[in-house]
Amino acid sequence: MRGVAGIAAMTWLASTAAWGDEGMWLFNQPPRALLQKKYGFELTDAWLERVRLASVRFNNGGSGSFVSPQGLVITNHHIGADMLQKLSSKERNYYRDGFYARTRADELKCPDLELNVLVSIDDVTERVNAAVRPHMSPAEAFAARRGVMAAIEKESLDQTGLRSDVVTLYQGGEYHLYRYKKYTDVRLVMAPEHAIAFFGGDTDNFEFPRYNLDICFFRVYENDRPLASPHFLPWSKTGPAEGELVFVSGHPGTTNRLETHAKLLHRRDVTLPYTLARLRALEAALIQFSERGPDQARMAANDLHRVANARKAFSGMYQGLLDPAILAAKQEAEKRFQEAAGAIGPDGAGVPHAIEEIRQVQDYLRRHDFEKRHALLERGDAFASELFTMARHLVRLATELNKPNTERLREYRDSNLESLRFQLFSPAPIHAELEQAKLAASLTFLAEQLGGDDPVVSKVLAGKNPLARAAELVTGCELFDPQVRRRLADGSGSAIAASEDRMIRLALTVDQVSRELRKDYETLVEERERQAYATLAKARFAIYGRSIAPDATFTLRLAFGVVRGYRAEGVEVPPMTTFAGLFERAGRQQDRGPFALPRRWLEGKDKLDLSTPFNFVSTADTIGGNSGSPIINRAGELVGINFDRNRFGLVRNFVYTDEQARHIAVHSRGILEALEKLYEARPLVKELTPSRP
Amino acid sequence: MRGVAGIAAMTWLASTAAWGDEGMWLFNQPPRALLQKKYGFELTDAWLERVRLASVRFNNGGSGSFVSPQGLVITNHHIGADMLQKLSSKERNYYRDGFYARTRADELKCPDLELNVLVSIDDVTERVNAAVRPHMSPAEAFAARRGVMAAIEKESLDQTGLRSDVVTLYQGGEYHLYRYKKYTDVRLVMAPEHAIAFFGGDTDNFEFPRYNLDICFFRVYENDRPLASPHFLPWSKTGPAEGELVFVSGHPGTTNRLETHAKLLHRRDVTLPYTLARLRALEAALIQFSERGPDQARMAANDLHRVANARKAFSGMYQGLLDPAILAAKQEAEKRFQEAAGAIGPDGAGVPHAIEEIRQVQDYLRRHDFEKRHALLERGDAFASELFTMARHLVRLATELNKPNTERLREYRDSNLESLRFQLFSPAPIHAELEQAKLAASLTFLAEQLGGDDPVVSKVLAGKNPLARAAELVTGCELFDPQVRRRLADGSGSAIAASEDRMIRLALTVDQVSRELRKDYETLVEERERQAYATLAKARFAIYGRSIAPDATFTLRLAFGVVRGYRAEGVEVPPMTTFAGLFERAGRQQDRGPFALPRRWLEGKDKLDLSTPFNFVSTADTIGGNSGSPIINRAGELVGINFDRNRFGLVRNFVYTDEQARHIAVHSRGILEALEKLYEARPLVKELTPSRP
Repeated sequence: MRGVAGIAAMTWLASTAAWGDEGMWLFNQPPRALLQKKYGFELTDAWLERVRLASVRFNNGGSGSFVSPQGLVITNHHIGADMLQKLSSKERNYYRDGFYARTRADELKCPDLELNVLVSIDDVTERVNAAVRPHMSPAEAFAARRGVMAAIEKESLDQTGLRSDVVTLYQGGEYHLYRYKKYTDVRLVMAPEHAIAFFGGDTDNFEFPRYNLDICFFRVYENDRPLASPHFLPWSKTGPAEGELVFVSGHPGTTNRLETHAKLLHRRDVTLPYTLARLRALEAALIQFSERGPDQARMAANDLHRVANARKAFSGMYQGLLDPAILAAKQEAEKRFQEAAGAIGPDGAGVPHAIEEIRQVQDYLRRHDFEKRHALLERGDAFASELFTMARHLVRLATELNKPNTERLREYRDSNLESLRFQLFSPAPIHAELEQAKLAASLTFLAEQLGGDDPVVSKVLAGKNPLARAAELVTGCELFDPQVRRRLADGSGSAIAASEDRMIRLALTVDQVSRELRKDYETLVEERERQAYATLAKARFAIYGRSIAPDATFTLRLAFGVVRGYRAEGVEVPPMTTFAGLFERAGRQQDRGPFALPRRWLEGKDKLDLSTPFNFVSTADTIGGNSGSPIINRAGELVGINFDRNRFGLVRNFVYTDEQARHIAVHSRGILEALEKLYEARPLVKELTPSRP
Repeated sequence: MRGVAGIAAMTWLASTAAWGDEGMWLFNQPPRALLQKKYGFELTDAWLERVRLASVRFNNGGSGSFVSPQGLVITNHHIGADMLQKLSSKERNYYRDGFYARTRADELKCPDLELNVLVSIDDVTERVNAAVRPHMSPAEAFAARRGVMAAIEKESLDQTGLRSDVVTLYQGGEYHLYRYKKYTDVRLVMAPEHAIAFFGGDTDNFEFPRYNLDICFFRVYENDRPLASPHFLPWSKTGPAEGELVFVSGHPGTTNRLETHAKLLHRRDVTLPYTLARLRALEAALIQFSERGPDQARMAANDLHRVANARKAFSGMYQGLLDPAILAAKQEAEKRFQEAAGAIGPDGAGVPHAIEEIRQVQDYLRRHDFEKRHALLERGDAFASELFTMARHLVRLATELNKPNTERLREYRDSNLESLRFQLFSPAPIHAELEQAKLAASLTFLAEQLGGDDPVVSKVLAGKNPLARAAELVTGCELFDPQVRRRLADGSGSAIAASEDRMIRLALTVDQVSRELRKDYETLVEERERQAYATLAKARFAIYGRSIAPDATFTLRLAFGVVRGYRAEGVEVPPMTTFAGLFERAGRQQDRGPFALPRRWLEGKDKLDLSTPFNFVSTADTIGGNSGSPIINRAGELVGINFDRNRFGLVRNFVYTDEQARHIAVHSRGILEALEKLYEARPLVKELTPSRP
């Protein structure tokens, strides 16, 4: 299994970050000196700006990039999957069978996909912190901070017309304003079959060697015409070589490397066991639902993939935290950090108290099942239903819009309303049978977690068992119709108050208790932690300077690394696979289950140059959210598309090592070979490589 | 969903049992008067004796019956599955592909299948109760009772040579001595393909209409020759008609109908949520393991089926207990029982105290995660591994055999040692890769449940995470070899003490803590509950006489009912399906996944009379453990093989109704038609129906 010897040198210990290729770096605090020193690479402003403007955030949870001047975007199949499924029907299953628009006219408009391109970053830490006065209670501090953030965002939106988000970095150490150009007319261009995009299924997920064509192309439109996108990444026809320096520009979602030992213990013993139980319950329900028939399998495919993927990722994190070596190293590092902080005067003086404060917050969370209740009722784990999510937004909009912008729950701030409405009024189909199955499973999970006599459980179930209650809530629900949702959102609160829709009534029923949980969570957990982490960040800057990147926040980051294999279980694993390896693996697995190749591949094998590289790995520092990120060479060319990590990379939430952990990407040459020889996608290949002979 | 209106009349209320066909009746207390009154059927001693001696218990958890005078036994495919899998190899997958021994010489000897036939029942209640003196502490009472039971069993074994088990009935109200003839040379004769035995998979499991050929034939041998079995059930060529009275003779495993309201609340809020979490974790691990490849799918098939089946059954039970109508009816019935008990003098005087005592036991269980710890460590939920189970037996045998018979842990009593050794020294293959996967999953579950810093968890994991620890425990384990197990079991305790096998060391490490949990469980839970339930049973006998059958105990019972359809979701469901229905359902599901028919069926469709009845339902009272039970008509002929319940029957653990709940059986005519036309099993058909034209 995984060796942990290499973990001694890790984030907390890194007095200089010269060891390894760790770091998901901010574009406004790039690791210029490090790259110069370690790789002799000069990171110019021009290089950075072009990469930033070519990078695309998929707001449904992934990354991508422009790859032609006509708005063509590439990402992963598993990021495009949401749209592939929403565009599918009983008759046409694009998710399973793939899609290719031979002409612009054939491109399919997505119902609710928002893409963002990062235009600028401003440090607003001082203004945010200035709003929080000494001696404010946590509740007052939280309200003041939320207020100033909403105000900054609103001002920015009014001035620039750009989507404006204040991002919390270093767990509260800094606040930066991110401005995005937002695109909502996005059209599907090309996707391969699910069976080749996710070849090997759950078995090979988070493993390497790997053979996945996990790609999907979209095109951004503006005013009904393809977007002019001058800042695109030219396609490398050769791809990367072994040993080459590469970069990953994308949107890593969450890491926990700067968290304290007490917080990690809490994750191990409270948060992760709960999360795993929840994911297993949902995954089981989705598997059982999919077995009912081909139609149900289509409806549930994307949900099932997401849940299974999360389950495998969280399982890996949990195993990591159960490895005593990792937590011992974390504890040791925290001790040394405290010692160093004790030696630097005022900037370090608050460290012991801050660490203790975070420990006490975990105690609070553990008491009275507070974290669980918050997750079930306010985060919505008890209501795994699109209809419920919409009902809750409709119910809350009716209240929140009557408040000043600065006093609203954060998702209803002015600067976010357009994006929220775009999702809420989506014409994408909602499948009643799937809704019912997911809701039954999550209501059952609620009862399991809190007990059948808990007052909230009784209220939610309303005298029925979860199966019967889910059926009653979904059957006859009006919210399937986007027009009804528009009417309820745009009317005054009276439309909500008058609604007899059972899902709306349920959202109303649990609103008060959920808001109370949220308020406590925001003030007694988030705010306390944020203030404590701000103290730790200040000390860390004083001791280590800017040599440590902030934890991931689903905002644009730059990582770098080297294309390099590794040794596992006594065997050298080379950094690249080929098409030949794909056919070998399929054959060894008797072309069965998740190893069954699409007919196009089985029949087209002879057309391919089997020595073409297919997937490759590098040491660059990535995490979930980086899916679809471009892999870029020194020249700024696209050499691959990131889509996964190997299993050694599953502990990356907590520690980075380059001993065995790798991210995995599709090779740019492999993509071209498949597009040209198997998908006969000449126009697409031509657009990617206009100068190709 | 399920209607609950019909539940008003239920066990607790049944002042006479004339309502419905409830009851899993003892063969020594049969419902003669009831059958006479309700159906005009005279239950003769001769009829009862022949049925009893034709009934067979499968000690791996099911039922069956002799169907020829040459020792031929029929059961379900899913009961034979354990052996089908153990007899399979990489080259021959009998579980998936089926098997047919055209001649006696082709029959395959099972590695570790023990069958029991019930020879006699004696009421030993007085002798057992006499051993327990007033004013004994619960611990003393438990020890005294265990001692007298072991002594009775040993005496009986010595006198008769028969397997002798004292069975606890009415949760402690009565004790009966069951003597069995035991058979261990059992050979596989015929099994169909898994795909037709379990057509519809998890989706159709516990549903009706249904189309499963869930059958499997074995033959019992004695002295290497087929057993002469004069008490067999003649095969009915016509099968049952709608409205006909039928009987089920089999071994229902567990019901909870006589438990108190407090116990059911405890099951709802503590036991079942834990059980569901455990089953989901194991099922997920087995699904993921099966996806690795065809070989792994074969190894895990039977485990996966059992776990998925249990998960669906327990989910149904849980939904039942979350239905407020069911618990309210139980509570109301308990109240009336208390009132009735208050009116009958001394026999009823202890009832209020007994009900309160049982409530207090649940409080004890809930405290300190006691029930969970007991289940994880002593019942072995933390160690889902055959190797561990064997290691524990070996470790305990070394201690227990040095004690007098009456003082040993119950499974090591003299009268049980032969059966225990038969399992322990089984030559059946143990799959290292599967062991490792299951152990990793269950060790992970242990950590999730108790936390990473729990002292027992730390001891068990020994400084590794669960994945690494499972690998280390299984790799190089000596217990794969039955000869090693023999040596460790037959040697003195010193062989165990000297063993360096990691699995043996683990079993030693957790032995003390597990024994302590068991001791507390036996004395502070089981004994207290048993004494309280004995008080309730006495009052119930005084009030209701013998009109209520005891809860199920995996011992032979007789149930009866009528072949009858029901109404569900506004539709009349007829009581029988046909082969035509099978092909229709497969077609509607595009012959996909669990609805894919074996080639033999697809290609042989034209050979079948499609109007032949295939599966049918009746109102008879069954539960898990009844799988494979013969369905018998008034004439004592076999008309079907029970294999399942419909979903309305999933609450049968707690309440019986005949409104919609049904058991499901394969029709005797359908079996003959398939054997003859598709499996070309002429000799088998001839043996079943010697007089067939």
